[in-house]
Amino acid sequence: MSKPKPIDYVDASAEVRAVYDDIKTSRSVPDVNNFWKYLANDPRTLSRTWQSLKEVMAPGALDPVVKEMLYLAVSVTNGCGYCIASHSAAATKAGMTPEQFSELMAVVGMANETNRLVNGYRVPIDPAFE
Amino acid sequence: MSKPKPIDYVDASAEVRAVYDDIKTSRSVPDVNNFWKYLANDPRTLSRTWQSLKEVMAPGALDPVVKEMLYLAVSVTNGCGYCIASHSAAATKAGMTPEQFSELMAVVGMANETNRLVNGYRVPIDPAFE
Amino acid sequence: MSKPKPIDYVDASAEVRAVYDDIKTSRSVPDVNNFWKYLANDPRTLSRTWQSLKEVMAPGALDPVVKEMLYLAVSVTNGCGYCIASHSAAATKAGMTPEQFSELMAVVGMANETNRLVNGYRVPIDPAFE
Amino acid sequence: MSKPKPIDYVDASAEVRAVYDDIKTSRSVPDVNNFWKYLANDPRTLSRTWQSLKEVMAPGALDPVVKEMLYLAVSVTNGCGYCIASHSAAATKAGMTPEQFSELMAVVGMANETNRLVNGYRVPIDPAFE
Amino acid sequence: MSKPKPIDYVDASAEVRAVYDDIKTSRSVPDVNNFWKYLANDPRTLSRTWQSLKEVMAPGALDPVVKEMLYLAVSVTNGCGYCIASHSAAATKAGMTPEQFSELMAVVGMANETNRLVNGYRVPIDPAFE
Amino acid sequence: MSKPKPIDYVDASAEVRAVYDDIKTSRSVPDVNNFWKYLANDPRTLSRTWQSLKEVMAPGALDPVVKEMLYLAVSVTNGCGYCIASHSAAATKAGMTPEQFSELMAVVGMANETNRLVNGYRVPIDPAFE
Repeated sequence: MSKPKPIDYVDASAEVRAVYDDIKTSRSVPDVNNFWKYLANDPRTLSRTWQSLKEVMAPGALDPVVKEMLYLAVSVTNGCGYCIASHSAAATKAGMTPEQFSELMAVVGMANETNRLVNGYRVPIDPAFE
Repeated sequence: MSKPKPIDYVDASAEVRAVYDDIKTSRSVPDVNNFWKYLANDPRTLSRTWQSLKEVMAPGALDPVVKEMLYLAVSVTNGCGYCIASHSAAATKAGMTPEQFSELMAVVGMANETNRLVNGYRVPIDPAFE
Repeated sequence: MSKPKPIDYVDASAEVRAVYDDIKTSRSVPDVNNFWKYLANDPRTLSRTWQSLKEVMAPGALDPVVKEMLYLAVSVTNGCGYCIASHSAAATKAGMTPEQFSELMAVVGMANETNRLVNGYRVPIDPAFE
Repeated sequence: MSKPKPIDYVDASAEVRAVYDDIKTSRSVPDVNNFWKYLANDPRTLSRTWQSLKEVMAPGALDPVVKEMLYLAVSVTNGCGYCIASHSAAATKAGMTPEQFSELMAVVGMANETNRLVNGYRVPIDPAFE
Repeated sequence: MSKPKPIDYVDASAEVRAVYDDIKTSRSVPDVNNFWKYLANDPRTLSRTWQSLKEVMAPGALDPVVKEMLYLAVSVTNGCGYCIASHSAAATKAGMTPEQFSELMAVVGMANETNRLVNGYRVPIDPAFE
Repeated sequence: MSKPKPIDYVDASAEVRAVYDDIKTSRSVPDVNNFWKYLANDPRTLSRTWQSLKEVMAPGALDPVVKEMLYLAVSVTNGCGYCIASHSAAATKAGMTPEQFSELMAVVGMANETNRLVNGYRVPIDPAFE
C-alpha cells in the first residue's frame, strides 16, 4: 500500500459518487472535502461514516453550532490538525463567532489542565456525583 | 510525600478558607467539592485555578451550559473519571437535559473516530480551510 | 541544544555504525531510516531501542504483519505522523493489503469512538470480565 | 441528568429489545454486556453503534481475532479500563492465546515509546514513505 | 472565523501591548513568540495565561530548568510540535544540556511504554502506594 | 486468556526469580511491586523492561529525582492511576518534597492547557526554534 490518495468525483465508482452526491446536496457545496476523498479508498467506511455523521450532526436537542463546537473541542484536545481546520470552518459556517471561539478555547484549555490536576492529586469522586 | 489528602474547611489556613468561601458564595453551595479540597495542598494553585475557572466559566459569548458541555467533552476524551462525574453534574445543574447529554456523547464519539480516520489516511488540509 | 539533526553513516561513531550495520543487515536495506539517524544523537537509546524492537517485532506467536498492524493502530491513535508513514510502509512490506489497511482503519476508528462512549456513560466492568 | 443507569431487557422498549435480540443472536450469548445496557439510554446511538460494530468486526480481509487485537491495542493505548477488560475477553474468545496477548502488549508498549521518541527528536518523514 | 492570525505589536491594543511589554521585560527578549501573538486574539486569555505561566514557571522549590524539562516531557507525550520546539529552546536557554535532553527523552519514552503495560496487564495499585 | 494474575516469588520460574532478585538487590526492597509480578506473565518483557528501566533511570546527566519527576509528569498526563501512585512514591523516596510535587503539578497542568491553546489557534513554529 502506497500513501493513500484522494479519489475525485470523475474517477469514483457509482457507489462512491452516490455518497459524494448526498454530501454535496445535504451541505449545498460544489465539491466534497479531502476527508471524504480519502475515505473513498474504502467505500464501506465512506458510506458508514457519512450516514453516521449525518445522523449525529443533524439538528436535535443541541443546535448544530453547539455540535460543531463540541467536535472542535475534541479535535483540539486530540491535536488533529486537519480536524481543527475543517471543524473551525464548519463551526463558523454554523454561526460560531470569534468571541465564541475564544471562549471555547479558554474552556478547552482549562479542562485539559484540571483533568491532569485531578489525576495527579488522585481526587476521589464525591459521593454526590455518583 | 504520602498520598495527597483532602483539607477540610476546619483544618484550612485563612488563605485557603478565603478561596473556599468565594467558591461557596459564587456557586451557592454549602461545601466545596473534593477537587478543591485536594488542590488546597498547594494554596497558590488552588487560588490561581479558582480565579481562572471563575473567569473562564462565567457567562459570556457562550452560555454556561455550553461551556459545561465543552468541559465534559474534553473530560470524556481524556478519560478523566472524576472530571466526567463532576462536569456531568455541573452541566445538568446548568440545564443540560438527558437528550442533550446523549447527543453530546454521540458527537464526542464520532469526533474521536474521525480524528483517527484523518490521521491514518493522512488527509491533507483543504486550501479552503487555510 | 539546537534542533536535533540526523547523523549519517559517514559521520557516525563506531558504536553507532555497528547499530546501523545490524539494522541494514537485519532488514536487508541499503540505509537506515531517519528515525535511527535522529536517535543516534544518543547512542545508548539508539542501541537499546534497536535491541528491544528487534526482539519485540521478531516472528513469534504473532505474524510480523500483525505486529506491524498493531504498531500502526497505536500510531494512528496517538496521531504520530512519522510513525504512521513508516509503519504503513513496514506493514505493507510485511504483506498488509489495501483491503486489510481499510479494515484496520475501520476498527481503529470504532475503538476510539466506543472507548469514549464507555467513558462518558461510566460503564462498570461486567463481572464476567474480571 | 443523574449518573447513567443500565437498562435491562425487561425494562427496555421494543426498539431497544430489537437491538438486544440481534446482539444476542449474532454473538450466541444469553444477555448483552453492560456497554449496550448503558448505550440503551440513547436508542439511536445504541442502534447506530451496534450496526457499525457488526459491520466493522465481521470477518473480511482480516481475521476476527486480529480485529479484536487491534481493538485491544487501541483501548490499552487510551487507557479505557472497561474496553481493555471486554476486548481482552472478546479476543480470547476469538482465539487469542496468552502468548499472543504477551506479544501484543510488547508491541503496544514499544509503539507508545517510539511514538514519543519521534515527537521529541522531531524526526522528519523519509521521502521514501511519502 | 477565518484561520487565526498573529497580532504584531504595532497592530495591538494597549491592553495587549501591556502584556507583550511585560513578557519582553521579564524574559529580556526583543519580541514575543508566535504563541503570544496568536493568543492576543483573545486579550483575556492572553493576560490570564501569561500571569499563570509567570507564576508557575518562576524559580521556587524546583529549578527553572527542571520546570522547562517537565513542560517538554508533557509536550512530547501529547505530540504538540510547536510546544516541543519552543520548550526545547526554553529548556536549553535555562541550561539543559544535550545529554540531559537525551536522558529526558529516554525517560519519557519508557514512561509512555510502561504506562500502557500497566493498562493492558490491569495492574492493581500496591497497598504500600495508597 | 483470563484476567492477568500476579506471579509471586514462590511460584516463579528461575528466569523470573533472577529478575526479581536483581530488582530487590538494586532497589534494596524486600519484594517487587505488582507491576513486575504482572509483567512476569511474559518473562521476556519482564526482563527487557527491567533492563531498560535500570539503564534509563540510573544516575547520569539528570538526577534520579528529576527522572522520577519526569516519569510522574508523563503518567499524570496519560492518566495512568497505577503509574501515578508508584512514581509518586518513587519520586518521594528519591527526595521529591511536597513543595516540589506541587510545582510539578502546576507545570504539568499549564503544559496540558497551553498544548491545546497552541493546537486550536494553529500557531506556526517561530523560525528561531527551527
